[in-house]
Amino acid sequence: MRVLGIDPGLTRCGLGMVDGVPGRKPFVLAVDVQRTSPQEETGVRLATLERTFEEWVRRYRPEAVAVERVFAQHNVGTVMGTAQAAGIAMLVAARHGIPTALHTPSEVKAAITGSGRAGKDQVGAMVARILQIPEVPKPADAADALALAICHVWRGSSTDRLDQAQQAASGVAARQQQAYAAARATQARATQARTRGARA
Amino acid sequence: MRVLGIDPGLTRCGLGMVDGVPGRKPFVLAVDVQRTSPQEETGVRLATLERTFEEWVRRYRPEAVAVERVFAQHNVGTVMGTAQAAGIAMLVAARHGIPTALHTPSEVKAAITGSGRAGKDQVGAMVARILQIPEVPKPADAADALALAICHVWRGSSTDRLDQAQQAASGVAARQQQAYAAARATQARATQARTRGARA
Repeated sequence: MRVLGIDPGLTRCGLGMVDGVPGRKPFVLAVDVQRTSPQEETGVRLATLERTFEEWVRRYRPEAVAVERVFAQHNVGTVMGTAQAAGIAMLVAARHGIPTALHTPSEVKAAITGSGRAGKDQVGAMVARILQIPEVPKPADAADALALAICHVWRGSSTDRLDQAQQAASGVAARQQQAYAAARATQARATQARTRGARA
Repeated sequence: MRVLGIDPGLTRCGLGMVDGVPGRKPFVLAVDVQRTSPQEETGVRLATLERTFEEWVRRYRPEAVAVERVFAQHNVGTVMGTAQAAGIAMLVAARHGIPTALHTPSEVKAAITGSGRAGKDQVGAMVARILQIPEVPKPADAADALALAICHVWRGSSTDRLDQAQQAASGVAARQQQAYAAARATQARATQARTRGARA
């Protein structure tokens, strides 16, 4: 499953593209931060984000877009721009028929570190460890975007994992049947050998 | 000056297209409310708004887009959707190189009714009177969009009005000069008549 994680923001917007297979360590395809200047009109800044999202979606064709859920009560000064950047991400996803999922910061922290109250440094360190990359992605918006994508691969694949478990179980059954068949064949050959030995 | 006023909202978004010449009563070209269903994904709803804004901008070619300035502290429940709808309006405007202006609700009320604390009914009634339309546009989002457009025509043209005042002043000066010249001519004719009378 390929997921584009977006940590929305007007001044700095984090983007992280992750490929994940349930039960294995996901890996990073791309990570970046799109910046726009506060000197520009909001519409122009949103158009810059739109272009970047479009490029990433066309190049990597993600199956889902995971965006941080923005709360009105947090950071009143920047919340409007954050909400608008998130809106552009959802718009671009909808345009390509890609489902969008919103994850709260604490959901993401819990998925990545095991604690919903983990600090930025902890999240960054865990993202680097999970993706097996030598350095913590900088700035934090980049690490957060990857964390969102990883969180979505892991949370979004809970149904897949059940399927996989069933497939694995039927795989075990198949292997057991093969082993049984092999054992029977061995037994048959041993019987034949014994019969031949008895005849010789 | 042609202005598209937008009262942003996800469930109901007001649009009003107004033509205005400074110092004259503006008139309405179009007014409508675009609705989107809360059952749909936010991205899909934003895509619907994007299409409607695009259609209006292509059809009417406004010279400015006036959007209500959204505040984070108001209506926490709907503020995210409102901010995102406003963001899409700004995005579409920027895409067409049309400048966007944000006006606060009290600026609009003050421009339309003379009081920044006027009620919805008062604003609606004044919008109908200013645009000389027989009925108050319904729902309130439609009237508010027209109010935004009118407010922008009037506020945006303050420089124009100054120019106009200067032109009017120089017009007065020109008329005074003409009157003075006429008076002098009359005086000259009277002097000539007196001279002729004296001669006669």
